[in-house]
Amino acid sequence: MHHPLEGQSSALGLLRDELGDAVSFDADALDATRRDKSGYESEAAPLAVVTPRTIEHVQAVMRIATATRTPVVVRGAGTGLAGAAVAGAGEIVLSMLAMNRLLEVSRDDELAVVQPGIINAELNDLLAPHGLWFAPDPASRAISTVGGNIATNAGGLLCAKYGVTRESVLGLKVVLADGRLLELGHRTVKGVTGLDFTALMIGSEGTLGIVVEATLRTRRLVPGPVAVISATFASVEDAARASAVITASGLTPAVMELIGESAMVHISNHLGLGHPGGSQLIVQFDGPGALVEADAALTSITSLGGVAVLSGDRAEGERLFALRRAFHPSIARLGTVLIEDVCVPRSALPAMFAAIGDIEQRYGIEIPTVAHAGDGNLHPNFVFEGPEVPDHIWSAADEMFLAALRLGGTLTGEHGIGLLKRRWLRDELGDDQLELQRQVKRVFDPLGILNPGKVFSPAS
Amino acid sequence: MHHPLEGQSSALGLLRDELGDAVSFDADALDATRRDKSGYESEAAPLAVVTPRTIEHVQAVMRIATATRTPVVVRGAGTGLAGAAVAGAGEIVLSMLAMNRLLEVSRDDELAVVQPGIINAELNDLLAPHGLWFAPDPASRAISTVGGNIATNAGGLLCAKYGVTRESVLGLKVVLADGRLLELGHRTVKGVTGLDFTALMIGSEGTLGIVVEATLRTRRLVPGPVAVISATFASVEDAARASAVITASGLTPAVMELIGESAMVHISNHLGLGHPGGSQLIVQFDGPGALVEADAALTSITSLGGVAVLSGDRAEGERLFALRRAFHPSIARLGTVLIEDVCVPRSALPAMFAAIGDIEQRYGIEIPTVAHAGDGNLHPNFVFEGPEVPDHIWSAADEMFLAALRLGGTLTGEHGIGLLKRRWLRDELGDDQLELQRQVKRVFDPLGILNPGKVFSPAS
Repeated sequence: MHHPLEGQSSALGLLRDELGDAVSFDADALDATRRDKSGYESEAAPLAVVTPRTIEHVQAVMRIATATRTPVVVRGAGTGLAGAAVAGAGEIVLSMLAMNRLLEVSRDDELAVVQPGIINAELNDLLAPHGLWFAPDPASRAISTVGGNIATNAGGLLCAKYGVTRESVLGLKVVLADGRLLELGHRTVKGVTGLDFTALMIGSEGTLGIVVEATLRTRRLVPGPVAVISATFASVEDAARASAVITASGLTPAVMELIGESAMVHISNHLGLGHPGGSQLIVQFDGPGALVEADAALTSITSLGGVAVLSGDRAEGERLFALRRAFHPSIARLGTVLIEDVCVPRSALPAMFAAIGDIEQRYGIEIPTVAHAGDGNLHPNFVFEGPEVPDHIWSAADEMFLAALRLGGTLTGEHGIGLLKRRWLRDELGDDQLELQRQVKRVFDPLGILNPGKVFSPAS
Repeated sequence: MHHPLEGQSSALGLLRDELGDAVSFDADALDATRRDKSGYESEAAPLAVVTPRTIEHVQAVMRIATATRTPVVVRGAGTGLAGAAVAGAGEIVLSMLAMNRLLEVSRDDELAVVQPGIINAELNDLLAPHGLWFAPDPASRAISTVGGNIATNAGGLLCAKYGVTRESVLGLKVVLADGRLLELGHRTVKGVTGLDFTALMIGSEGTLGIVVEATLRTRRLVPGPVAVISATFASVEDAARASAVITASGLTPAVMELIGESAMVHISNHLGLGHPGGSQLIVQFDGPGALVEADAALTSITSLGGVAVLSGDRAEGERLFALRRAFHPSIARLGTVLIEDVCVPRSALPAMFAAIGDIEQRYGIEIPTVAHAGDGNLHPNFVFEGPEVPDHIWSAADEMFLAALRLGGTLTGEHGIGLLKRRWLRDELGDDQLELQRQVKRVFDPLGILNPGKVFSPAS
């Protein structure tokens, strides 16, 4: 009979013995894992940061974690916005950043096999010579990992046309809580053998297993021109209406980003542009029909009162996105930011912006908002002082979420639940589904050592 | 305390009391549920066929089934090819054919809400006036249901370009084994709240719950011309090579169907065409670039020895597919057919056809084969006399499946496991994943009354 080895000290001793210099106790390294890009910070540093270089390393960590009942937080680049990769007291961090290789590319089968720590932008740099790209495109792509995409089922700017992460993952290798290795999915574009555990794992935020390898579906680089429209509207409702008309008219933008009025003020201040005022809609088309589609969109935009410029030059088009990319930096300097992530049916975008305006008025606060308008995904930002979210901000966020639900929407389009959105999980899933999800979590993690408290709060 | 009501007679009495004329004991109706399109036939008829008209009917049936521990087989049009919807002794059949309405269409949000019994072709007829269509396109679309697509995560002719069923379902209403109703997913194009139970349900073949409503992602009808190439090659390896070259050159056919040599002989006999010989490749392009893409494909085909005709006329293009559509009727008249469904990476298509040729030689049998070449999905057909699959056919099928696995492929691309492919489930999933899948099944169905013996065999 084996007895479980209880206690932190035995876990640390075992990690040191088995993993040597892959284990760090450096105070700065530990401290860095207490936060992500949400601004949330845990109360204390974790026990250790392990940086595995092989699947066997990950298996060894999980065997030790199981034997000693020690919780494990898996972490990529720490760019999450919901606290899912934040580590705290008594936890082991599995940092996947050293498992960052591109293992295989097949141009003929349009697939790539990668380790989870590879950075999104670096992967696309490596794929480009093969004429391929990986479509999921979070705004953080320059610094975020593919493993992070998988953990949150990330969307990004291009997903209305090119799909979210789930549509770009064919198979996964996953280390279970007890250290066993599973191979899920396949290398083929179709496959229905058994339950779809690949899809179940995508978006599970480190609560079901540790993704150690992924077979990705890549796409051919899109040939032909890119056309970008940048349009100013008097109000965000007008801009939202234009985006809804563009979608409803059957055009397929690759990117359609909407910047609200107060967001534009902060961006203008940050970039030193003065105050142009109004709301901005930036629309990109690609592929052989890009210019024809852009002309049609321009007609709609102008007829709805937008003042627009159109560029058919790829580099110039990139520059038109500078406004959008400046948004998060422009807000981050104002204080602590709670970035929300509601998603509504696209036709409800104008109504959702109106609901946000109403909440701003009643609470006397500003909620700078940008949206992936092509798929109805809004990022309303709440700014406050200090590390704790004040009660009136939670109340305003609560009203905003309920407004999204009333419009047929969802709590989170792409950031995930993590710690910061657990309070609304039951409202959206309902009691019965939440209980079933907890039971499925227990099938994969009977001891509750995989990212405990994330997604499923102890009390919910 | 409640005691479970054991036994068939109490189940039947309760069904009659609660569901009245929705319950049938008609011998022909019962007998018809003993088979599907795979040719498999169960040993005895089920207890009753219930044809619910409302979600409440389905909930009542499941409450009774739970109370009396009676197994339930959910069934649509019975067009399955793996035996998943075949009913036997002691079982209640839930026939979803009367829940066949289109409940809502939103052109602006490109979605439709349907009941599961709606026929695929009828749904598309109803969507067309809205300028929309539902992409999953099984060869059986004229007679198969959307619920059947969901149960098997069906692909079809168009899925290489337009995705499988999972990519076209946003949300589901599901009745659980005990009669509770769950709402999974959402009406938005993105959403990552909790585990992806919508994806888990899709392809679960009636083993986790009863789908009673679906919110579907639809697409705009593709404008512009359709171009179809029909090309004859001396051998199936040549035709497979041409299809691999077309995909690898970055062209995106909407449909690419390959017909093997012996399949062509049977089709020719069936249609009275004489024996043109060789293998046929039929390729369809759609969208604004259809004719340009077709010209490029034609060049590849000709350079590889194909003798081809190209049509830019939609009706004429449809006629070129008549050969492909005649395949199943041409084989069905020869005897009992075991239709296999392996899928390999597209670049491995020529190697997979070579492996099938080798098995044909060594076993002295003919394996007429067609393939969705655009996604590497082959349907090799084994023909024999009588209802039982002979041992040598199982052996040949076994070798074929192992060849597909060796080439990086999968047991089933779109038909599912049902009864007929259970024997290979463990080979593909492995012991650990199979056991986890069984445990997840038990979370949803603790009493084991949902389609027992399907996918997960009692012994496996």
